[in-house]
Amino acid sequence: MYLARLQRLKATLATAHLECAAAIAGPNLYYLTGLSFHLSERPTVGFFPRDGDPVIVAGSLEEAKIKNGAPYGVRSFVYGDADGPAQAFMQAAQALKLNKARLGVEARRMRVMELDYIEEALPGLAAEPAEDLFAALRMTKDADEIKAMREAVVIAEKALAATLPQIKVGLTEREVAAELVVQTLRAGSDADLPFAPIVASGPNSALPHATVTDRALQKGDLLTLDWGAATRRYFSDLTRTFALGEVAPELKQIYELVKAANAAAQAAAKPGATCASVDAAARRVIADGGYGEHFVHRVGHGLGLEGHEEPSMHGKNEMPLETGMTFTIEPGIYLPGKGGVRIEDDVVVTAEGCESLSTYPRELETIGV
Amino acid sequence: MYLARLQRLKATLATAHLECAAAIAGPNLYYLTGLSFHLSERPTVGFFPRDGDPVIVAGSLEEAKIKNGAPYGVRSFVYGDADGPAQAFMQAAQALKLNKARLGVEARRMRVMELDYIEEALPGLAAEPAEDLFAALRMTKDADEIKAMREAVVIAEKALAATLPQIKVGLTEREVAAELVVQTLRAGSDADLPFAPIVASGPNSALPHATVTDRALQKGDLLTLDWGAATRRYFSDLTRTFALGEVAPELKQIYELVKAANAAAQAAAKPGATCASVDAAARRVIADGGYGEHFVHRVGHGLGLEGHEEPSMHGKNEMPLETGMTFTIEPGIYLPGKGGVRIEDDVVVTAEGCESLSTYPRELETIGV
Repeated sequence: MYLARLQRLKATLATAHLECAAAIAGPNLYYLTGLSFHLSERPTVGFFPRDGDPVIVAGSLEEAKIKNGAPYGVRSFVYGDADGPAQAFMQAAQALKLNKARLGVEARRMRVMELDYIEEALPGLAAEPAEDLFAALRMTKDADEIKAMREAVVIAEKALAATLPQIKVGLTEREVAAELVVQTLRAGSDADLPFAPIVASGPNSALPHATVTDRALQKGDLLTLDWGAATRRYFSDLTRTFALGEVAPELKQIYELVKAANAAAQAAAKPGATCASVDAAARRVIADGGYGEHFVHRVGHGLGLEGHEEPSMHGKNEMPLETGMTFTIEPGIYLPGKGGVRIEDDVVVTAEGCESLSTYPRELETIGV
Repeated sequence: MYLARLQRLKATLATAHLECAAAIAGPNLYYLTGLSFHLSERPTVGFFPRDGDPVIVAGSLEEAKIKNGAPYGVRSFVYGDADGPAQAFMQAAQALKLNKARLGVEARRMRVMELDYIEEALPGLAAEPAEDLFAALRMTKDADEIKAMREAVVIAEKALAATLPQIKVGLTEREVAAELVVQTLRAGSDADLPFAPIVASGPNSALPHATVTDRALQKGDLLTLDWGAATRRYFSDLTRTFALGEVAPELKQIYELVKAANAAAQAAAKPGATCASVDAAARRVIADGGYGEHFVHRVGHGLGLEGHEEPSMHGKNEMPLETGMTFTIEPGIYLPGKGGVRIEDDVVVTAEGCESLSTYPRELETIGV
């Protein structure tokens, strides 16, 4: 599998007129090698040349992992903390023989630090953003990847079901967040969660990117939970909004609009439809309901080995969807000072249309009182 | 407090002949502003010019957070997903008036993406690595920061005490890791843990950077737990190694050596002593015991808002310690195929020497049988 991925990468390198691609500790390096490295102050860089074996530069603590775990021939150059990485990058450069080559780098991940080491070791090199090339490799998921994502969704939904009975008026957002994490782990998630849950209550639910606070839940609040699980490194990312007792009529009204917008986007997603058309389908419902200006973000984002990846489901992305693409559908309405609603599902594009991996009900559920 | 930090930064900028410093979503931006942003595909960059108010470029979802949360005057320029960030960076550049200026960037954090946007918006600019400048700001902790770290240590130690009685031969490393995370959250950690715990049993304990596996714990194993908690964004990072029943005599012997090395390093740490001398104190004990080649990493690393920060406690770092610096002391011995021992404490340099914030016993404890 990893060899097939490497060969696909090599084929795209030729098309893009790049001699080599480079990826640092993280999902692209994992996708290509199956090796997990932590992002730290010690740079780890994998070089994938069009010709010849890949080369990895890493701290010496990673040497055994590379030697025992590499799925194909890899040349590794390691360094200790006291000496630092410069020499290992020089050795890698000599092994790669990339003078005056064009190197594709993952600009959204690679840090200035790694680029500086690379440019110092390979002075004639031209580094070029190659985010799209890595994204194209990973955007369409195979059956095993979709299976892992489905498992991650099941774990997240189990965690929600176990958390809800414990949510009561008077608990703080922080306490609810801790319980949700505990239940996500108990349900079988990897310890490395995709992200810390958002638990946003009352007026805080009107912030799409709320941070968890010590606010206590109150009767009449909307409560938004945005959380995910990880299994075999693949992520889920779900959101549901709940009512703590009876909520104001306008909040019920925006809930129904968001639910309809979610359904409209799911109906619009199919092979050949553009990302923009999926965004537009949700946006039309909310605008027609009179809340267009309060749907302040794109309808969704790609999901897989990263919490946010391609395709970006925004209104100017004219890329057509293909079978096997996976992304979130998460319209929302946010009324400053009053509250907000977001309903987020994880979907996969199928031959017929799109399947939601998440099946937790989307009706407004009253809890906690 | 944040204003005082900003003023300290401005003073160092002048000394370093930089007109401005830039920091992306993460600890430096938090340290200077108290604002938390998630690192994502949407760039967030704070610019801190020597003259005038700071400028923040961020996605539009962050606008309310900046307006409501900024601790001093901040000019913000935001962008939506469909339009992308280029225009907001242009506006920021006009506001900053930094033509041909020298900009200090945090090279270990800033990604090629952010640098590309900055360089496009400010074509005459010279971006220079300014990691050291940010590190110098943050290296010496104030009383409130040390209090937060102490709390994070207490939470981690409570979590350990709650986890140990549940560890039994036959459980897998993954199950132990999940339990340790659950107990860390129950003990009061922020949901955003510093790192996913390392649970390494038997031969896996000989890998300093082990990843958690499905290996079941066996009688006669050493079991290394490396975990941490977070509170008010400050981290703890601890390691203890346990015996699952009776372990081989050599494993007991290396345990005692590591314990003595930890004590020697703690005794060596004091104001004026170099980082290298602390590393050397631990290394001497282990080398004298005949296992020098199996202590394969530095004795520790700085700790605070990041899991790994300055000072780096390695054998070539001749920087003298100062009161208020916080770092780990974590010597280890790793015998491939047999097992490994690491004992890690979090310490703060005091006027008299150093105080270990962590107090969990360092004697070899037998558990799980």
